[in-house]
Amino acid sequence: MLIPSGVDGLFGRSAVYESIVDGVGKMVHRLGEDQGATLLSFPPLLAKQVFERTGYLESFPNLVGAVRSFSGSDDDHASLLRTVFAGEDWSEHLGPTDLVLRPAACHPVYPTCAGRLPPGGRHFEVSGYCFRHEPSRDPTRMQAFRMHEYVYVGEPARALEHRDRWLELAREALSTLDLEVTAEAANDPFFGRAGELLAGLQVKEARKIEIVSLLPGYPAPTALASGNSHQDHFGNDFGIQSANGDVAHSSCIGFGLDRIAIALLATHGLDPETWPETVRSMLWS
Amino acid sequence: MLIPSGVDGLFGRSAVYESIVDGVGKMVHRLGEDQGATLLSFPPLLAKQVFERTGYLESFPNLVGAVRSFSGSDDDHASLLRTVFAGEDWSEHLGPTDLVLRPAACHPVYPTCAGRLPPGGRHFEVSGYCFRHEPSRDPTRMQAFRMHEYVYVGEPARALEHRDRWLELAREALSTLDLEVTAEAANDPFFGRAGELLAGLQVKEARKIEIVSLLPGYPAPTALASGNSHQDHFGNDFGIQSANGDVAHSSCIGFGLDRIAIALLATHGLDPETWPETVRSMLWS
Repeated sequence: MLIPSGVDGLFGRSAVYESIVDGVGKMVHRLGEDQGATLLSFPPLLAKQVFERTGYLESFPNLVGAVRSFSGSDDDHASLLRTVFAGEDWSEHLGPTDLVLRPAACHPVYPTCAGRLPPGGRHFEVSGYCFRHEPSRDPTRMQAFRMHEYVYVGEPARALEHRDRWLELAREALSTLDLEVTAEAANDPFFGRAGELLAGLQVKEARKIEIVSLLPGYPAPTALASGNSHQDHFGNDFGIQSANGDVAHSSCIGFGLDRIAIALLATHGLDPETWPETVRSMLWS
Repeated sequence: MLIPSGVDGLFGRSAVYESIVDGVGKMVHRLGEDQGATLLSFPPLLAKQVFERTGYLESFPNLVGAVRSFSGSDDDHASLLRTVFAGEDWSEHLGPTDLVLRPAACHPVYPTCAGRLPPGGRHFEVSGYCFRHEPSRDPTRMQAFRMHEYVYVGEPARALEHRDRWLELAREALSTLDLEVTAEAANDPFFGRAGELLAGLQVKEARKIEIVSLLPGYPAPTALASGNSHQDHFGNDFGIQSANGDVAHSSCIGFGLDRIAIALLATHGLDPETWPETVRSMLWS
């Protein structure tokens, strides 16, 4: 199912595993089909100038992936290769690029909304590989994983309503996959001393609600989907206004496609041919 | 179709564009359906220890994307943020990780073949985002793009036969999409002074054959697919032997999915609804 790469949290995937992720992705897409979301697709990289405006470096510096490349001469190249062959850190021979790895599927959406939104705001659907630098042998905590999101940008009340409606849709859909799920307030892993305060505030204000499942063999529940109220965070970062001129609010629901695939395997067994017919028809009908 | 990101060669994609890439990917998948290839999937990142063994750093250092992250204290974080706010290079505050961006879809396949292969060798199908650091405004030269590959690892004669049979399949399929294509010997953009010799040798030995098309508005042909004979390169790098104990040879055909999408748009116009019915049925039947 998962093919070790030599790096914790980085895996290849078998065809069977991919068919599960594909089935989950299509199910999530069908859930939103009647909601008029604009489907966009972005590569796994994000412009550094966009990334710097999201506040991610303030909150999660330890999860960041910044991209370096080489722009030297033949002599610099020889020096780079000597460092490689000596088994030392050769990233010192590289310089910065304009790129970082995308930490969440929705981040590239917000700059496309800069300016005044139409009445009612805008809905987006976006999916793809994301990166968080948290090497772990636990397959539910990959460094490179796929997230499928529905995003709303617009008015405050609608942003909350979007998040809560999608949490209910997510809970129902995951239940139909015969996963035992509950919703609970959660916090992001904010960095450092100040981070503890931010995490506490996030829970207290219920800004992040996760749909979690206690998987066989795990001591604590695993989040399979996450509904986030950003309030005016991205609206401020990217100069987005609602139709009435106020700073736009936003919210998103993210489905962890690899997490859900692993939850299905852990719950229903390693052979999808033997999974309950109701589950199979949700994924592959 | 393509959404600028603020960085040359990094684009978001519209739903229509994605439906073209999706159609091309499915067509390429169907082309190989009866060939018994093992379908594998890998994230856009590669283990650094695998990357170092491929020789990519020797040949294409300027195209590399190496990933750095942060592992410091609260004080180090404050120092990082001061650098960010000053608009200076903050990658200096990060350290190396075990990860690089994947430059070709097939690279993570070879380490999975280490050891003795079965008689006849092995076939693989693999697809996904690749990265090359070559910022350009030309949409046929993206930094993050999708490649769909068929790879053979095994005996020398079969490796050549795989490459040449696939070149013919690729040429036929792209012709059926009403693209005017021809096959021609090509070279990779090897770095530096020594690179010129390597590029010359590659052309002379016809180790790289591209299926190219002269697109409207372009002064030179654009490669849409590329068949590569690696000889014993990856067999040596990753300790792969044929069934008879010799170092394995390998070859691959790579379809540039974004390149083909752009070729279709440039050739048949920006509205796929108006494309010839034969083309539409190849992509979306």
